[in-house]
This record gives sequence, structure tokens and C-alpha cells, in this order.
Amino acid sequence: MTFELETPIPLVDLDRLDRNINRMADYAASHKLGLRPHIKTHKAVRVAEEQIERGAVGLTCATPREAEVMAAASSDLLVAHPPVGLKADRLARLPGDVNLMVALDSAESVETLAKAARSANRPIRVLVELDLGMHRVGVPAVEQAIAIAKLVKDRPPLMYAGINFYPGHIRTPAGQMDAALGKLDGELHAALQALEKAGVTPGIVSGGSSPTAFRTHDIRGLTEFRPGTYVYQDRSAVALGTCDRDDCAFTVLATVVSNAVPGQAVVDAGTKALGREPRDLHSDGGFGELLDRPEVTVSRMSEEHGVLDLSKTSWKPQVGEQVRIIPNHVCIVTHLNDVIIGIRNGAVVERYSVDARGR
Amino acid sequence: MTFELETPIPLVDLDRLDRNINRMADYAASHKLGLRPHIKTHKAVRVAEEQIERGAVGLTCATPREAEVMAAASSDLLVAHPPVGLKADRLARLPGDVNLMVALDSAESVETLAKAARSANRPIRVLVELDLGMHRVGVPAVEQAIAIAKLVKDRPPLMYAGINFYPGHIRTPAGQMDAALGKLDGELHAALQALEKAGVTPGIVSGGSSPTAFRTHDIRGLTEFRPGTYVYQDRSAVALGTCDRDDCAFTVLATVVSNAVPGQAVVDAGTKALGREPRDLHSDGGFGELLDRPEVTVSRMSEEHGVLDLSKTSWKPQVGEQVRIIPNHVCIVTHLNDVIIGIRNGAVVERYSVDARGR
Repeated sequence: MTFELETPIPLVDLDRLDRNINRMADYAASHKLGLRPHIKTHKAVRVAEEQIERGAVGLTCATPREAEVMAAASSDLLVAHPPVGLKADRLARLPGDVNLMVALDSAESVETLAKAARSANRPIRVLVELDLGMHRVGVPAVEQAIAIAKLVKDRPPLMYAGINFYPGHIRTPAGQMDAALGKLDGELHAALQALEKAGVTPGIVSGGSSPTAFRTHDIRGLTEFRPGTYVYQDRSAVALGTCDRDDCAFTVLATVVSNAVPGQAVVDAGTKALGREPRDLHSDGGFGELLDRPEVTVSRMSEEHGVLDLSKTSWKPQVGEQVRIIPNHVCIVTHLNDVIIGIRNGAVVERYSVDARGR
Repeated sequence: MTFELETPIPLVDLDRLDRNINRMADYAASHKLGLRPHIKTHKAVRVAEEQIERGAVGLTCATPREAEVMAAASSDLLVAHPPVGLKADRLARLPGDVNLMVALDSAESVETLAKAARSANRPIRVLVELDLGMHRVGVPAVEQAIAIAKLVKDRPPLMYAGINFYPGHIRTPAGQMDAALGKLDGELHAALQALEKAGVTPGIVSGGSSPTAFRTHDIRGLTEFRPGTYVYQDRSAVALGTCDRDDCAFTVLATVVSNAVPGQAVVDAGTKALGREPRDLHSDGGFGELLDRPEVTVSRMSEEHGVLDLSKTSWKPQVGEQVRIIPNHVCIVTHLNDVIIGIRNGAVVERYSVDARGR
């Protein structure tokens, strides 16, 4: 099948997108968990609106721009990135009907956000971020969380709303993560008890990643979870066992531009179309694979060239032939594009904007 | 020094940019070589205009969008990417005053481009691409180049203009590339003799990369060269010995957002601000280093988080503190941004657009 489209360009199979959105919404509903999807994966109001329509309690964003754009889809926004510098002021200037919540992990961030909130005369809910093993942001000790929570309570119009964490370090198939989840559950449970004892019982306990999403109900005390990648899925998610290959809704349409060098073919999707993301941290699995030919991977890239490894196929690609590439990490590919092509049953039915791309 | 800017955002030291542009222009002039810079590194009309003003014979682009935008800076454009599918038609529709040249390596590309050129009634010059060791695109045998050149001559309004190649496989410091350059020179010389004998003497012989740029005069027969990265330089170029660290004109301004996890600090520049590009293919050197603290590298990244490795410094970063990161591969960072901040002597003096970003 050939699309009358200039390549490289992302295609989203809208039937798969619908299915992915519905599956997560159903899971959240059946376990009475709040679903607050992270929009970094799609950055599109059109997709966010579908998530809200299917019951999401709000949205998670990382940047001020994402929050500004997503205010069109939901009035309940969590910015899950510490507010520093001019970003705090920009967040405080969000439309007045947005019920804003911000995650942070330091006294400096509290003071910065409090100053911005006072200037804008705007209440802002605060989650205190715990590090439960990811070792990225978040305070490692619950005593620190208690101190920050108390500081927040002393800084109106900030309001202490609860805690959050990101279990991004748990990257095993859902059926094999019992030990890791058990450890997480134990640490979180102890933290919750300490917070309660200190008089800063969290109303919201927000966790969840895409790989752990369908195990969220096994973590005691969680009220919300924030998966992102599940809408589109990608090659890394398949490799992790998080989803089936047929759940991958997002491919990059590319065209074979050269087969002059023996043993390979070159497509017009390179690092500026796919990103240089590993499939997983411990493999040399290439930078993407063909939707219709899983045995063919993108083995090397330049900025505008992707080299297809033909060593495991008898296929002889012709110049001009189109291919669809499942990227390793879809959130990066979204960020590289302004427009997404929506398809159903292989036909183009829609174009939508990556509204929150940029800063 | 603190900039009143929301981070992450790219800063370009315009004094260094001027120096880099002038140095390459002076080299080209002193050796009577045509300089046709690849604009993929900056994608900015403002920078392209400076390159043309300082004597560049034209510009090199990779995508139709780049060519459309760069028509504002030069009427002599080379698109150094095989024209396939709808791209050939789009190129043929460039403004009539653009003297277009396209590089290709297959009969299919010739036929596609010829059809587009006939439809638009537009002459297009063609370079036939040779593979001289990069093994990406380009025909490996001169006999194939001769056949394609003859086909081009049979397909007016296409015009056979010459040959091109990209020596991107030569990645050693300029002073240590004698053997590689000697091999390249010998192969090119033999190819040129064969082309002449076959009656398809190339008027233009186009080569050159940023690492080999200042050795271009050592390759017999070259008429033009196409360096890109030299305008901004980057950490990979420094690692290769292509430039000095003080030549790096481009940094990403970022802010420390967390120091909660011991032994590290987290900045707001992750893969969506820096790209996940290796410093070089054989090292584990991190994803960028601080301009003022070369011993501090970005050792891990998420999409909006970069983790600074503090193991080699006594510096204790505070939340809110700004840092400037030299990225590994600047061309990718450009592609992630819409706007560049120009500075001189540490002060913001200009903002310019990444005009040719997107498709």
C-alpha cells in the first residue's frame, strides 16, 4: 500500500489508539483509580479530549507550554516537574479556571512557587515528590517530605494536596514485577503511615508509569496513576512485555531512497524523524523495526537517513517503496513533529496537530 | 550569571559564530575552493545569509522544506538527498529563480526527478553520488555512476552537473587523517579519470564534511565542499579534534530543578532538549557537558530531566541555579527548537528563528 504523503511523517492507527485509550479507561474504572494520563506522549488536544471523555480525572504535563495547551482539554492539570525560575510565574498565569497542581521536591521550589502564586493571587495545589527507587527527582526520606509538606501548608495560597512518585525504574513485564511492586508497596505504605502520623495525610497519592499501569491496584494507598505511552505504545513497550505488537498505534511512514550500497537499503527517516533512542538499555536492537517486516530493523542512522539491515530478510526494497517504522520510543518522535496523520483501515481519515510541541 | 530566560533554551555566542564562519570562509578563499555549507546545523536564514555574505557559493539542504526556506538566502541550492516520491515534485516547484541542483544515486531517482522537472518545465542540475567509504548512499562502482550520468544526460530538462560524495566515515583529528585522506584521494582520482574517459567529465566535484573541512585542499579534483557543524561546533567535534572547546558557540541553557537525590543534580534539559546523541560512537561520555565545568556531564536523561554527574566536582548545585550545556551533537538540538537566543559577552542581543525546522 502506498500513501500519497510526503515522508517521513507519523501515522497513527486510530482504531488502535481508541482501543488503547479504552483499555486503560476500563482498567481505571474497574479498580476505582483516578487516571491522570501524561500527555507528553501525544501533546495533542484531540487525544487528550478522548482521554477525558473516557473518564480521566485530569491530565499530567511536564512543561508550562503543555499545561497552557492542555487547559483546552481539562481544567484539572498536574505539572509533574519542579517549578523553577520563570516557569513558576508562567504556571501561575494559567487561565483562572484551571485547577492547577504542581509536584516538587525542595524548599526552594516551594518558595519559588509560593511567590508566583501570591503574585498571581492564585491557589495552587502541591504534591510532594518521593523517590521510591527511580533516583531522578523526589526526596529519598519521608522526613524530608514531611518538612516540605509542612512548609507548603505555611505558604498560602499554596495548598498541600498529597504526594507523588514515579516508578520508572520498574521495567519488567507486568506478570514478572511482583518483587519490585512488593518493595514499592511496602516503602509507600510506611511513608503513608509516617505522613499521617506527622499530620500531613495526603489526599492524593499519585504514582504509575505505563509499564506498571495495569498493576496499579496492587499498590496500597494509590489514588491516581499517570501512564503516558499507552496511547500509542512503541517498540520498547513491546520489548518490555507491556503490550502486544498489535497495540502499536504509531508508525513513521518512510520511503526507500537508496539501495545502492549492497546488503542494505536507506530510508528518509533518520535521527531527525526517529530519535536515537535505544529499544531498551541493555540491547543493540536497532532504532526501530518495520511494521510489516519485524525482522528488518533500522540499524544505523544519520540525521535524514536510516539504514535498514536486510541481513534477515529476502525482501529486496526498491527505491520509492514506502515502509512503516515502529519507533523505539514514541514520545520522542511526537516531539519531532508538528502534524500527525490519522488512519483507519489503512486509509487517511484525519490530520491533527501536535499542539503542545515546542516551549 | 543568570539569564532572565525560561529554560531549557539554546544560546548561541554570536562572536564565536562569526569567528567560525569567517575561519571557514577564509580557508575556502585561500584555496580557491567553493564553500557550500550544509544548513542542517542551523536551519536559520540569518546564519545562511552570513555564510553567503562571506563568500559561500551556495547552500546545501537535505529536505524540501530546507530548500524552500533557504531560497531566501541563496539562489544556488544543492539538495543532497535522493529525490523520491512527492519530494521530487515539491523540489521542482521551488521559486523559479532558484538554480536547483539535486544529488542522487539511482535510475529510479533520475526518472522520478525527470518527471517532476518536465511537469514543472524546470531545468534541474544533477550530481551523481559516489560511495567512497561512508556506505550510506552513493553507488560503489564508477561504472554505475557513469550509467546514471548518461541517463541524466538523456533526460532533459535534467542536466548532468557532476558528482558528489560524503566522507562522513573519516572521523579522526585533521592532523591524523593522512592515510584515510590518501585512500579517498586515490579512489576519487581514479573515478574522475574513468568519468572523463566515458565522456561524463564532472563540472562540479562536491565533497567535504566538518571533520575533513580544513584538509579539503588535499583531495585532488574537488571543486566544492559542504561542511555543516562548523558554524556552531559541539562536544563531538571537540572530542574528534576538529575544533577547540572555545569554538563551541552553541549551549543549552538549563536550570537545576532538583538536588534531592544525593550525588547528583537534575536539570530541566533532557532528551527533548539535548537529543540522545553519543559524544562519539565508542565512548560512554555522557550526553553533554557544562560550559563552565567540563568535569560535569549529563550522565542520564529522561524526556525533560537531565541528571548531572557530580562525582568529579566539589560544586554543590542549588535548585534554581542555571547551567550552560555543550551538547554532543548540535544539529539535533537545533531541530528540537523554534528559537535561538543570540548572546555577545554574556548578554542577550538577539533572537532568531530556526526557520527551516519541521517538514
